[in-house]
Amino acid sequence: MPEPFSFNLIKTDGSARRGEFVTPHGRVQTPAFMPVGTQGTVKGLMPDDVRATGAEIVLGNTYHLMLRPGAERIAALGGLHKFMNWPLPILTDSGGFQVMSLSELRKLDEQGVTFRSHLDGAMVVLSPERAIEIQALLGADISMQLDECLKLPASAHDITRAMELSLRWAERSKRSFESQAREGHALFAIVQGGDDLVLRAKSARELTGMGFQGYAIGGLAVGEPQEVMLKVVAETTPILPADRPRYLMGVGTPHDLMEAVKRGIDMFDCVLPTRNGRHGMAFTRFGAINLANARHAEDPRPLDEQSAHPAARTYSRAYLHHLTKANEILGGVLLSTINLAYYQALTAGMREAIAAGRFADFQAATEAGWKQGDILAL
Amino acid sequence: MPEPFSFNLIKTDGSARRGEFVTPHGRVQTPAFMPVGTQGTVKGLMPDDVRATGAEIVLGNTYHLMLRPGAERIAALGGLHKFMNWPLPILTDSGGFQVMSLSELRKLDEQGVTFRSHLDGAMVVLSPERAIEIQALLGADISMQLDECLKLPASAHDITRAMELSLRWAERSKRSFESQAREGHALFAIVQGGDDLVLRAKSARELTGMGFQGYAIGGLAVGEPQEVMLKVVAETTPILPADRPRYLMGVGTPHDLMEAVKRGIDMFDCVLPTRNGRHGMAFTRFGAINLANARHAEDPRPLDEQSAHPAARTYSRAYLHHLTKANEILGGVLLSTINLAYYQALTAGMREAIAAGRFADFQAATEAGWKQGDILAL
Repeated sequence: MPEPFSFNLIKTDGSARRGEFVTPHGRVQTPAFMPVGTQGTVKGLMPDDVRATGAEIVLGNTYHLMLRPGAERIAALGGLHKFMNWPLPILTDSGGFQVMSLSELRKLDEQGVTFRSHLDGAMVVLSPERAIEIQALLGADISMQLDECLKLPASAHDITRAMELSLRWAERSKRSFESQAREGHALFAIVQGGDDLVLRAKSARELTGMGFQGYAIGGLAVGEPQEVMLKVVAETTPILPADRPRYLMGVGTPHDLMEAVKRGIDMFDCVLPTRNGRHGMAFTRFGAINLANARHAEDPRPLDEQSAHPAARTYSRAYLHHLTKANEILGGVLLSTINLAYYQALTAGMREAIAAGRFADFQAATEAGWKQGDILAL
Repeated sequence: MPEPFSFNLIKTDGSARRGEFVTPHGRVQTPAFMPVGTQGTVKGLMPDDVRATGAEIVLGNTYHLMLRPGAERIAALGGLHKFMNWPLPILTDSGGFQVMSLSELRKLDEQGVTFRSHLDGAMVVLSPERAIEIQALLGADISMQLDECLKLPASAHDITRAMELSLRWAERSKRSFESQAREGHALFAIVQGGDDLVLRAKSARELTGMGFQGYAIGGLAVGEPQEVMLKVVAETTPILPADRPRYLMGVGTPHDLMEAVKRGIDMFDCVLPTRNGRHGMAFTRFGAINLANARHAEDPRPLDEQSAHPAARTYSRAYLHHLTKANEILGGVLLSTINLAYYQALTAGMREAIAAGRFADFQAATEAGWKQGDILAL
């Protein structure tokens, strides 16, 4: 029998936390960044190359995979790990966010959501129970409850209604998840409440009362200013139980990650390192660098000769500029790799700093590196 | 001082040849297939992944690289090998074929060609001497003469004129190449003459009289039937010196490769394995397989569990189908890899068979494998 899902809080430094959790497919060190594998692939990268960046867990998308190729089909093929040849842990989101952002939503009621697939226009129903069933078919190590995710700004009435509905869906998700008895697997709840701190606190308290293996903060990074996001995070994490991982969904820039870890977050996922990589942007110790810029055209230097990842040490900025300008696939592949390696190096650096009780120094030094890059126009 | 370029003809079996040539960046076993790295990258693949398919040499494109990022720029950055992080031999074509197929040709005269860049419309001049200079700036191990490459069908008058011009350009290319004294590097001539066997023979004889390190057959696979191409190859190779490598440019399918090796060809380049891979087609021991076809949607089998390459053994047809239908970059990356590995396995198989004096058996067995695939509808 596999070990039950567990979270071990190893060290704290202020509100920043160094931890580890255990899943059926292995251990994950936190703070952790999860590359996004929306359609059963981290775009453009072979699984071994994703692992080589230092990633210990990836995210898969219930919404995309249920529509294509279908959860039952992936289950028949042995589950998502086997399907995409990724042997380490997978967290799947529940589809709530994508229903809002990608589909034509037709009906939302107590029962669930009915929407038109963005692929073929077919009508699809997603309930809390079906979202849990799909994630079990995929074989997710960590499943997420279905929630209603609003765009901000939204009215107080709408935020309240969506938060309350998400609470009731959390309860149904939990009942459904527990009926499956998937040993060692975890279900995370999602705190909602928009930018309203009172509603956020209520959501966090009630979800904590129900008891989940982990807690996500959802409905952020949807258009609000960074300080609003960080304020919600700072006010929410103290309400969540200290002995469970905390996951800030869909966030963010390297700066967002550090600020959120400082406020007690353990896990992140975001498309930025891969999406921006495909558009010619590199994330580095020296800040973000736009390789499309003509100033890189003759620059023989690699992006970071001290990087632990060979791709950041090997290829010249001139070559990455060339690939970007020529719209070559390899440009996106290399920059996605380099960016994921930087995100992993950043979280590894935060883990080490928290363990050593010098997170504030690490953050100051990291930000100074970004500023230096700005000054030198790297 | 590097070893001079040399070709060692190890064994013949009928007209099929097993050989090896030596360049400043290493040895290449023939028959050899060269993946195409048009713009300084084999599309979508990291150099290590290209090597892992078994490739010992890649092709680069003078036409593309002179327009972007520019030959002088690549030279300033240390040459094409360093630029693209490919440590093994590189052959560059001279640009003649791309001027015909990609640019708006403005003027062709004794001196050279003037054309409009397909990128920015700039007027560019390419002469035999400039083509050699560019290839030296790139650092090519093997350079090609500039030729005039016609689309077929063409009039006898045009074919004659282009062939004669290409002969004069061969002489100028040779003079220019020799003035550079690039020790160990090679210059190959290009036999022209369309589908006219008399003109082909004249071209081959005159080029042989001038003396080059190798001989290409150009101007084929430009729209003529396969039997015409093979007839030209069969009639041309006996005229070429036995102690120099023979390169059939821009060819072809796995069947083309075997038929051409049978007629005395040693080297090939072609975009088929990578381009068709990006469009969902796999080349395998069982023939070509279109992964977009719905019959693969639930097929858990890999493309070839006996392949020497892990990608062909690991990923299910269902997964490759999914990636293809979802238009995911990784589909093209994996199928390009799998296809290049198949081409390398095919040439390795031919080399082994020729060495053992059983090329005909190998060809029969290989074709039987493709037929079996058709029958089983793999």
